[in-house]
Formats: sequence, C-alpha cells, structure tokens
Amino acid sequence: MSEKAKKLSTEPYKGVRDFFPEDMAVQNYIFGVWRKTAESFGYEEYGASVLEPAELYRAKSGEEIVNEQTYTFTDRGDREVTLRPEMTPTVARMVSAKRRELGLPLRWYSIPNLFRYEQPQRGRVREHWQLNVDLFGADSPEADAEIVILASRIMETFGAKDSDFTIKISSRAWLDKLFDDISADLEGFDATFDNKNALLKLLDVKAKDPDRFDREIVKLHPKLSGDFIARKSKALQTSEEKSYADLEKLVATLGNMGIKNVELALTEIVRGFDYYTGMIFEIFDTDPSNRRSLFGGGRYDDLTSLFGGERIPAVGFGMGDLPVKNFLETHGLLPAPKSRTDIHVCTTSSELVAKAEELATKLRAKGMNVSVNLTSKKIGDQIAWADKRGIPKVVVVGEEEAKTGKYKAKELATGAEAPL
Amino acid sequence: MSEKAKKLSTEPYKGVRDFFPEDMAVQNYIFGVWRKTAESFGYEEYGASVLEPAELYRAKSGEEIVNEQTYTFTDRGDREVTLRPEMTPTVARMVSAKRRELGLPLRWYSIPNLFRYEQPQRGRVREHWQLNVDLFGADSPEADAEIVILASRIMETFGAKDSDFTIKISSRAWLDKLFDDISADLEGFDATFDNKNALLKLLDVKAKDPDRFDREIVKLHPKLSGDFIARKSKALQTSEEKSYADLEKLVATLGNMGIKNVELALTEIVRGFDYYTGMIFEIFDTDPSNRRSLFGGGRYDDLTSLFGGERIPAVGFGMGDLPVKNFLETHGLLPAPKSRTDIHVCTTSSELVAKAEELATKLRAKGMNVSVNLTSKKIGDQIAWADKRGIPKVVVVGEEEAKTGKYKAKELATGAEAPL
Repeated sequence: MSEKAKKLSTEPYKGVRDFFPEDMAVQNYIFGVWRKTAESFGYEEYGASVLEPAELYRAKSGEEIVNEQTYTFTDRGDREVTLRPEMTPTVARMVSAKRRELGLPLRWYSIPNLFRYEQPQRGRVREHWQLNVDLFGADSPEADAEIVILASRIMETFGAKDSDFTIKISSRAWLDKLFDDISADLEGFDATFDNKNALLKLLDVKAKDPDRFDREIVKLHPKLSGDFIARKSKALQTSEEKSYADLEKLVATLGNMGIKNVELALTEIVRGFDYYTGMIFEIFDTDPSNRRSLFGGGRYDDLTSLFGGERIPAVGFGMGDLPVKNFLETHGLLPAPKSRTDIHVCTTSSELVAKAEELATKLRAKGMNVSVNLTSKKIGDQIAWADKRGIPKVVVVGEEEAKTGKYKAKELATGAEAPL
Repeated sequence: MSEKAKKLSTEPYKGVRDFFPEDMAVQNYIFGVWRKTAESFGYEEYGASVLEPAELYRAKSGEEIVNEQTYTFTDRGDREVTLRPEMTPTVARMVSAKRRELGLPLRWYSIPNLFRYEQPQRGRVREHWQLNVDLFGADSPEADAEIVILASRIMETFGAKDSDFTIKISSRAWLDKLFDDISADLEGFDATFDNKNALLKLLDVKAKDPDRFDREIVKLHPKLSGDFIARKSKALQTSEEKSYADLEKLVATLGNMGIKNVELALTEIVRGFDYYTGMIFEIFDTDPSNRRSLFGGGRYDDLTSLFGGERIPAVGFGMGDLPVKNFLETHGLLPAPKSRTDIHVCTTSSELVAKAEELATKLRAKGMNVSVNLTSKKIGDQIAWADKRGIPKVVVVGEEEAKTGKYKAKELATGAEAPL
C-alpha cells in the first residue's frame, strides 16, 4: 500500500504529448514533407531555443496575453522567461540581429515547438509544433505569391487535391482602409486602435457565428451592420485602391501558376495577430463535415523595426502539426506505417549472436538498417516480434547457415525467400 | 532618445543559442549522422515534451538537484513542472506506461533538447541537444556490446579514426562489489549509500586532479589511499566475480567486431547518475591537447521499477551536441558548408518573374531545390547573392531565354555552362 503510494505516474505533463515510435513516425512524415517542400523553394532552416525573454512578446501582444496565455516564469537571476508561444518574434529578433551580414532577401524556415497556456481540448494542446516559413526583404505581390504557392505546394505534396482545400485571401492594408472609410462615415466611431480591433474580431466570427456578429456589431455603433460593411467593401474594390489592385495581381499570378482554388474573402479573414500589414491568407479544409481553417499567414512589414534600425518587409505563414494531422486523417492521406528497419536477423542460439552481428555489419555497410536478435525467444516469436514492428524481412542465422555462410532473406508479407 | 530606450534586444535568453542557417546546418549534420547510425542498428525514434512533472526527477536525483540545477516552476494549476534536464527518466516513464503493448526488446532513440540551470561557460550552456539511445529488455553482455558498438560506429560515421578516441569501460556492479570489499576491510567505513557515493565521486576526479584525490580520500577513512584501492581492485579482477567476467566477455566481443580502442578502466570511470547498475562506459578524445570525456552511458536495470510493475533491463547512452561539435572541429572533421539549394534563377526584369517561376516549377518537379530572384538587383548582384549562400548554380531568365525557352545553367565554381 505504502509502496503503491510512492509509485511515479507514467502520465506526461498535462496537455503535452508523448511520441511513441508510431506517433513519431507520423510527426516525422509531416516534418519531412514540410522540409522537402520548403527546401525545394530554396528556404534554409534556422532554429532557436524555446526559452525567450518575456519582453519579446510584451511589445506586440500586450501584458495581458503574455501573463495569461503563455508560460512565463522568473529565473533565479530575476529574468522573466517565456516558453515561446509563436516563432515570428524570434525570427524577427534573429534577422534584426544580423541584418547586415545576412544579405537580403532571406528565405527561412523552422519547425519549432510552441507553448500556450490553456485548457487542453481536442486539437488545442499546450504544446504543438509548427512549420514557420518567412521571406524577408521582398515586398512585391510576387513575393506574396511565392509564399501562397509554397503553402499550396505543401498541401499537394501531402496528396491533397485542389478540391480538398480553398485558399482565402484578403489584405490587412485593405481592411485598414475599409475601417477608415467606415469610421469616417459614422459619427462617434473613431479611427482608434480599439475600434479597429473590435471590428476585425467581429468580422472574424461572422462566418462561424452570424447571430453573434449581428448581436454585437450594433454595440460598436448603432448604424453598423453586415449590409453597411458590405456596401463600404464593394466601394473599396477598385483598382484605384493599391491594396486591392495588389490582391487582384496576386490572384492572377496564382492562376497563372495553376492554383485555381483561390478566393478573395476580403471581409471574411482577418488573422489574429496585430502585426500583419498587407496580404493575409488562410487555407480551409473543404470537407463538408469540417470546414475548418487549417493554417494561414500574411505580410508583416513592421515587426523588425521593434529592434531598431530600418524596417524589413516580410511575408510568411505558420502551419501547425495538429490541423495537418487531422486533415490527413480526414482525407485518408496518412501513409501506411512503415518500419525504417529493413531486416531483422534471427538467431537459433545465443552462441550465434556473434555470427549474426557479423552478417548485420556487412548488410549495414550496404546501406541497410538491420536489427539483431538478442533474446532467447523461439524463432517463431522472433519473427512475430519483427512482424509486429513492420520490419519487412527476416534472416535466420542457424548452425547450418553459420557454417556455409549462405543466408536467405524471407519477405514476411509474401513468404518469398531470396539469397542474401 | 526615448524611442531608442524602447528598442527590444536582439540577444537570445542567457545561456541558450540561436541557430542561424549556417549553425543549423552543422546541427542537422550531427543529427543526421546520429539518426542514420542509430537506425542502421534498428533503433526507432521517439519523442516527448520538454515539460515534465518535477516529481519525475525528485525520485532519483533528489530534492536538492531538482531545486538548484533544473528549471522548475509552478504552473497556474499549482503543478510543479521541470524543463527536462535529461531524457532517461522520460524514456523510462514512457516504456513503463506501455510495457505490455510495446513488446520487448525495444530499440529506441531520441534527440531531445535538455536544460540545466547553471552559469553559462564554454561548452556548458543552459540548453543542449543530446542523442539518447536505449535498448530495453535485454541484459546480456551482447546487449551491452551492441550499445558500445553503436557508440563507436557513430564516431566512425563522423569520420573519426580508432586513434582519435578511446572507449573506457567499467561496471557499476563491479564497483559496488569493490566498495563492499573495501568497506568490509575498514572499520568505521560502513557500506552506506553516502560512503559509496563519496568514494565514487573521488574516483571520478582522480585522473583529472590526483592531488585532490590524495587530499580527500583520507578524509573518508585514514587507511584509504590510491594504493589501498588498487590492491582491492586487483583482487577483484577474477573470473569468479561475474561482473568482471561479463566485462571480459564484453571486451572480447568488441575485439571480435574489430573494435580495438577499448580499455578496461575499472576504477577510473564511474558515471555521474546513481541509476546505473551494470556496465558503464565513456568515450574519450585522445587529442593530447584535449583528453576530454566526450560522452558515455551504461546499464540501468532498475529505473522502470520506479513506476511499479516488473523491472525492465536497460542499457544506453547519451551524446551531447557540443562535445561532438568540439571534437569534429578539433579533428577537422566538420564537412564544408553546402547549400541545400541547387540552383538560383536570376531575372533581368520583374516582368520575367512569372517565366522564372515557370522554369523553377519544372526544375522542382525534377527534384531540384530552386530559388527565384524577386528583387530588382542587377544580375551581377543576384549572382553574388547566390554565391554568398553557396548555391552552386545559377540560370538567367532574360528576354531572349524567355522567348526561345532555352536556358543555360552556370556552375559558379568553374564558370562552366550547360543547357538546362
């Protein structure tokens, strides 16, 4: 009883995940597609510690978010430390630190783990991994296009068809202009940061919860309504407005590259972070049972100025492991698990382990991944062990094989044997 | 002035590292050799969060180490959380959680980041990465041998020659026996945990600081000395003592596998953690200017019993990124930096970016990594940008090339041109 009480729990910390080899294989598959596709566009990998000075997040996210939604603690040197909740401040910090040596433009990617302090629920854990892709030092619609194309290519590389996802595009610059127009028209609805944020937040919930939108929009101003915004929006969709002309050019460029599942969703997507300054986009699952936003990004041209020195234009996106995994499962796109071990060497007695190791060494020199039996299990159980792990082939080292030096590999799926 | 005061620092948190692409390439090279070699022996990758319940470390490391040498904080749910300082408790936890489903033996590896709260100094940072390799469910000298062979193969895969490193081997079981023999002979030097630990700690410093050893050993007991221990050690090197016979068998097995740079260093290496129960080993750099311990490991058969249920034999090692990087630099083994981008597409005007993207898409479809110029830089500067990054080839998309559809790739190192 007292011994039982002292037993340590085998549970991980609340809200984080253990990755057993079969889970890790899925993570590595996702990370592999991310890396391969980002590198095919010339993006270079960077990295940083999960620990960052807390002040890095205070500047743009505000005191409240840092204190309530992040893991922030004080170290024994009295420094306030945060487990990074997102990667963009880190990459802006790093680019600012070496802007001169690095030589713009920069194409950078990373796959950091990120922490959020929140109640764990389906798809909302406290730690997740995220592909971060950023292009620094280029501010043309072509640069915006490259980022959206790369996001789309990642979906394709995962095996998604055009009909499986939609790319919705808007512009923070255009939304800012829309807000100015609205505010100019409504007495008492001034062009303040708070009013703008409140309006953007409501636009963000409109598609998900139209009732809430209708209920709350009039609280911002009695004359405000969906119709009112739609009229203002319509008037601002003109090529004289540069932010709109840029979006039209972007959509045309994407079309020329064969990317047709794009839609302008001007007042529909706003993105959460207030550091966006230009094009914003979000990719949605089109599965009727689950029309979720999968991931998104946009242009943020001012973030590096927080660190002093000149402003560096930047555009990028972040793509979380959990929405991707969910998407791949929903659409049946996760590849079947496959062992990375090519062959398991079975032994009929412990005296033959040395011979088995010798054979394994030869096979490894040929580039094969080889495990060797170290147990006293029966041959049948050794084979069952390999089969359970998905190891495709076995070879048995018995007295006879050891004597003649002739070994046969057996394919477990078919039973076919071939000399090794 | 007031603006300057508000500027954020571009420095990372104290004692952790930023990985700019050139640094990340080195990390990825090291991680790549680790993965490839571990997988060639049939090891499967697992992972876990850097956050663990603090109690996981209290059981074996003790309150003092957890409080003073780890990052431990209390979350808002009043849970004590630690940033993992080592991976072995985590892997023992995970294996214990699913011992039934997993099916022993298990060959597992991981490359976690680990945190220690200490003053940063050369080679001793607050965050480092470590390859962790463990074999669960096999307790023969052959299993010990597999782990040492794998450690040695990793060194070889890094390009190290036999003469570049030595593998020193001992046994915690044998050292325990030695301690019992010593204690039985010395009145007042009882076989307590504290006395044993004190003696092991002194043996650990003997080679590095013989004066300190001589000064402090007599404080444990007036009759204790290097000579006294040597006599007792000699007497215990007999095949009747199983822990010694096992070591002899291990060294013979390693010799048969062609691993000759092994030495029995019975009273010389003890390993820091108190969870070892059998064979222990440590690999040393033989560079005369720097005879450091690079990494090590050993057998720990009792750790899973902390979680209840039956004991699972285990043997493994941990190999840090910094000692490896240092070793590779010292011995000139770090490969020359190489871009992962194969070709940069230059453009003579922004109107040609669409053509350049078209060409890039074709080349990517052939498996090449391709970046496209998005700047208005002159061709010479575009090429210089590619060269600075080590991108080996460029192709220029000009009016003429766009019209004819004929492109030439230029190798920057030689100036040689070839049709693409």
